[in-house]
Amino acid sequence: MANVPHPFDPLSPKEITKAAAIVRSLFPGVAPNFRVITLQEPPKDDMIAFLGGPDLNQAPGPRPARVARVQVVTRRGDNPTHLTELLIDLQSGQPIKRLELPGRHPYIDSQYMREVEQACLADSRVQKELALLNIPSDASIVAEPWAYATDGMNDMTRRLTMVWFYMRGFDNPDSNHYAYPLDVCAEVTEELHVRSVYRLPSGVDGEIHNDQRPFDNARAVPAEQSEYHPSLRPPPRTTTKPLQVVQPEGPSFKTKGSFLSWEKWTLHVGFNYREGLTLHDVRYDGRSLFYRLALSEMFVPYGDPRTPYPRKAAFDLGNDGAGLNANNLRLGCDCLGVIKYFDGWHTTRSGEPLKLPNVICCHEQDDGILWKHTNFRTGNAVVARSRLLILQTIITVANYEYIFAFQFGQDASIHYEVRATGIMSTCPIDIGDSVPYGTIVAPGVMAPYHQHLFCLRIDPAIDGFSNSLALEDSCAMPIDDPNVPNPSGVGYITTSQIVEQEQGLDLDLAKNRTFKIINEKRLNPVNGKPVGFKLYPAYSQMILAHPSSFHAKRSEYATHAVWVTRYDDEELYPAGRYTMQSMGGDGIASAIEKRRKDPAGKSSVRDEDIVIWHTFGSTHNPRIEDWPIMPSEKMTVGLKPVNFFTGNPSLDVAISDPAKNKSVLVPSTPGEDSGECCARL
Amino acid sequence: MANVPHPFDPLSPKEITKAAAIVRSLFPGVAPNFRVITLQEPPKDDMIAFLGGPDLNQAPGPRPARVARVQVVTRRGDNPTHLTELLIDLQSGQPIKRLELPGRHPYIDSQYMREVEQACLADSRVQKELALLNIPSDASIVAEPWAYATDGMNDMTRRLTMVWFYMRGFDNPDSNHYAYPLDVCAEVTEELHVRSVYRLPSGVDGEIHNDQRPFDNARAVPAEQSEYHPSLRPPPRTTTKPLQVVQPEGPSFKTKGSFLSWEKWTLHVGFNYREGLTLHDVRYDGRSLFYRLALSEMFVPYGDPRTPYPRKAAFDLGNDGAGLNANNLRLGCDCLGVIKYFDGWHTTRSGEPLKLPNVICCHEQDDGILWKHTNFRTGNAVVARSRLLILQTIITVANYEYIFAFQFGQDASIHYEVRATGIMSTCPIDIGDSVPYGTIVAPGVMAPYHQHLFCLRIDPAIDGFSNSLALEDSCAMPIDDPNVPNPSGVGYITTSQIVEQEQGLDLDLAKNRTFKIINEKRLNPVNGKPVGFKLYPAYSQMILAHPSSFHAKRSEYATHAVWVTRYDDEELYPAGRYTMQSMGGDGIASAIEKRRKDPAGKSSVRDEDIVIWHTFGSTHNPRIEDWPIMPSEKMTVGLKPVNFFTGNPSLDVAISDPAKNKSVLVPSTPGEDSGECCARL
Repeated sequence: MANVPHPFDPLSPKEITKAAAIVRSLFPGVAPNFRVITLQEPPKDDMIAFLGGPDLNQAPGPRPARVARVQVVTRRGDNPTHLTELLIDLQSGQPIKRLELPGRHPYIDSQYMREVEQACLADSRVQKELALLNIPSDASIVAEPWAYATDGMNDMTRRLTMVWFYMRGFDNPDSNHYAYPLDVCAEVTEELHVRSVYRLPSGVDGEIHNDQRPFDNARAVPAEQSEYHPSLRPPPRTTTKPLQVVQPEGPSFKTKGSFLSWEKWTLHVGFNYREGLTLHDVRYDGRSLFYRLALSEMFVPYGDPRTPYPRKAAFDLGNDGAGLNANNLRLGCDCLGVIKYFDGWHTTRSGEPLKLPNVICCHEQDDGILWKHTNFRTGNAVVARSRLLILQTIITVANYEYIFAFQFGQDASIHYEVRATGIMSTCPIDIGDSVPYGTIVAPGVMAPYHQHLFCLRIDPAIDGFSNSLALEDSCAMPIDDPNVPNPSGVGYITTSQIVEQEQGLDLDLAKNRTFKIINEKRLNPVNGKPVGFKLYPAYSQMILAHPSSFHAKRSEYATHAVWVTRYDDEELYPAGRYTMQSMGGDGIASAIEKRRKDPAGKSSVRDEDIVIWHTFGSTHNPRIEDWPIMPSEKMTVGLKPVNFFTGNPSLDVAISDPAKNKSVLVPSTPGEDSGECCARL
Repeated sequence: MANVPHPFDPLSPKEITKAAAIVRSLFPGVAPNFRVITLQEPPKDDMIAFLGGPDLNQAPGPRPARVARVQVVTRRGDNPTHLTELLIDLQSGQPIKRLELPGRHPYIDSQYMREVEQACLADSRVQKELALLNIPSDASIVAEPWAYATDGMNDMTRRLTMVWFYMRGFDNPDSNHYAYPLDVCAEVTEELHVRSVYRLPSGVDGEIHNDQRPFDNARAVPAEQSEYHPSLRPPPRTTTKPLQVVQPEGPSFKTKGSFLSWEKWTLHVGFNYREGLTLHDVRYDGRSLFYRLALSEMFVPYGDPRTPYPRKAAFDLGNDGAGLNANNLRLGCDCLGVIKYFDGWHTTRSGEPLKLPNVICCHEQDDGILWKHTNFRTGNAVVARSRLLILQTIITVANYEYIFAFQFGQDASIHYEVRATGIMSTCPIDIGDSVPYGTIVAPGVMAPYHQHLFCLRIDPAIDGFSNSLALEDSCAMPIDDPNVPNPSGVGYITTSQIVEQEQGLDLDLAKNRTFKIINEKRLNPVNGKPVGFKLYPAYSQMILAHPSSFHAKRSEYATHAVWVTRYDDEELYPAGRYTMQSMGGDGIASAIEKRRKDPAGKSSVRDEDIVIWHTFGSTHNPRIEDWPIMPSEKMTVGLKPVNFFTGNPSLDVAISDPAKNKSVLVPSTPGEDSGECCARL
């Protein structure tokens, strides 16, 4: 079977080349701009057969065909960027599907964005406005194009780009231009035409000051307060002593292509331009847990109501691509210890394979104590340390970075950790002014309030592919019901309700509401409860934008913390597949509503092939401590077995062995800690 | 100044000896049972003067006196355990205060509990009941005494002990007897008299079956499912390769007695029998942040309403003592890497100093990425890794363990992490029965639902000792108010409200309610906001027991997530100082109410010396995966600066250096990962 890819393997360079060749043949006489050549994952039914049937106990079914999903942009009529999407069978060389998508846009084209920058900087009106600012002669101008977030004010079938301007204050290309937002803004059309240039609102009144406001020297803060790059910073603190993670016998994991095994876990590591890291067929001790896990979208709406700021709202997956913007991770920087990297593959504009090196790192971490007990009668302590396997990817979306990590535990837990770092997007503000929807982080620099709204897509396969979602609440027992004795008033019970229909659901902290993904047909042999995994949500505020706003209409998933839907091969994205300049009506709520209204549609999610979506994130009202570069802000979602096993699945982890982990005592230094009564103060 | 203790230093062995001698002289002719000899921390006003006045900018004031707080138990009349509490000035050798406390009890006396065990096992009625159970001849009986949690059914001025019985199924003293709960229970009086022996309720009806129910062989589960001790387990998994944390240049922290400095942080490490680890005068870069941080109480009420189970409810600090039950931590087991240990000191019954060795471990951890940015225009990435300093202590309370860790970050954040592990308390259940307030974890073994309700006491000193608590909510702007332009409906703002009066407050996730401890007199020089620290709460359900129940009345702090009170030297414990068999009316709510009703009392908490109390925890409805020993369940509380500094306080951390951290690539093995298209499946 050598050289036969696993159905979950991302497309190989050869497959990308082949797909491009087939697509080129379908566009005779034109050179399509290839935006996407990615694996079209097999229909789930085919994969279920391949993996051994619904109960995973049959002989493997036939190997599903390798299919590429391709997006190309070509000129059509007066539209220079008509989008066509194709599915290409790589065995037969035939297109299976071809979709023309007038008015839709693929993800942001970074080459085009560079052209927008250049067009802007070359524009005479832009130059004239900038000249009025009286910028220091040694400074340079940075034009920062942003995809236009729909605000109802323009035709969204054509690309329109907002360009914000900054000054680079120091003669260094890595100087932090976000520290000098300028009071100029431009709109650029599909054809690179600068169609308007204007000043930005200043104070809280939202009014645009069209008077000339030259660069204010009060804004020229010292590099120490505005720069993060070491070449522009004073020497760093020297107090942090080196710390090394050493694994003399190598790591505990094994990989073979995209297949990964570690401590009873097995899974396939996937990667695509949009979601970045994806996980497939995740099992523990051979038992199926999840068919697929991936971040499915993230939305960053800004809370500044003043025109044109509502145009700032980024779909960092749908518009930017978590895979495309994945960092090339460096040994000893992004991951510490003994590291395995995975590369990704994408396509060039012309359809050649493009390597995205080191986009995923895989390594182990010590995680403190896994379990411990001291028998007070014998004084004997037993301690097992917790080891984690980390699969991490980091993306840069212009000014901002996100660190995404799946963490696997020996106790069959999975945690998904998101860290937000990087540089906050800024805008100018008059010195002395303030606004209630942003924080002044430096003189003349305002960091607007915004939300980060992530959606983790959980495609469960808990002991099989038919699952249900149960809501379990913890509730006090009544104290006055003679049928329910509770004489001391201390009793409490759990109530469980299985969700029958597709819907969005809310957290309920007062009830300790727990979301359990269960298999009602598989009962725990000890206690008879259905086997399951429970979600440990990241408690988060949902979207603040008004339901009638485009921000809310475009990010349908952002209104509820937990969604349950029926599985659909095409339903991977809770804000829709085409988020660029989207108008709403494309997301998870619309899909549910459509099925509900369809006489032939099915809405039942009980004992069905279901998908759970968890919306979480942060309402990020900047602290000045987030400036000029933000200390990581962590958010964590957990998945843990609940009555899935017959006991602690990590009970067989060996107890901690000091001879192997070689911990040492801090050497005693003369005069230090020499007794309980030392000289101090 | 050699040999002069710092005012925050715990009592030295010599000071303990001296205090005992003074107290003995006050009890001529009797040998008091010394329960406590601990540091009475100086009055805060004295310490403020000593530290440099309210603004910390004056010359140090006089050194406060060293004072010991002593609790002794003596026979008085017909009460064999009369409690007296004394404050002893160690300089003058004089008692400053003496309090007789009839009807109050100090923490649980482990020697007495052993006597209770023995008395029980020697009692003929107990023996008769146990004989009826037809226990296998090679098994032994374990009597497990529990402090009696007030349920209104008995006189609580005298000690009364509940004793539960278990069978030790294997001929090994470390066998897990909690796997074999027996259907017998006893009540033992102060005078070691077994005053009643009875069967436990079985099914959900709460009825006690007085028929003879011999040991059921169906309960005899294999050791593999019930034992955690390696001597009783099959060989462990061997797949986990060693992982070492190495610091070739030693750790980055320094200690001198109780004084600790690390990465701009300074603090004093305290320890006492009750709270265990305490932190004092916590500063970053010389600026005052917290006067004192410590866990102040924890309560574990069980949710089984059937008599006598409401008597199971443990105050693990007030009744048991987090310091007294702190583990002797072992190198390479409880902490990994380069470790510094701190010892604690307590007293024997006779007043001799008793060393509690290695009760705190101090070490560093790598914590992933602290901050990162890649300049997409230059491709240059800058990454700093996060280092944490951990101060950890672990306690064993009979069956259960808690791991408490303060984690200091280079970004001036503090996180307080609690892990729950150990063995769940169990009770017998008829095979085939189930109850809605517990989980069957093995045949005949029920682990009842319970809550863990912690209270972290935060005594802030944010740039001085007069602070306020502000509630900041994130709220959507109206869309129809002409005075508040919000044309696109996307605007949101924060509203801030300063708490004026002492009270308990609730979390409000829908508003992203943020609790900021601020100093209204100190404004951030860049943005004019008051300097502050914000609380990242652990989102938790509050107590489920009915307000009229003794559980609720005894744990007043457990009804609200955040409390703010005026500082009071004697107010360290939110469920009162004497929690053993307490009746309620002693906690934080009562203290607030008392001041409110007192015509001379003050209730203002604005710009005052205040204390913030955070109640958090878990509603622990056991999973079978928590059995027989529970994988750590983590809870985390955070404290982070907000507009306290003028920028990211970790900006000066050196960027990651692979030459120093010596990370390595996973070696490529032939046949493994040799290309993008390997043979698999």
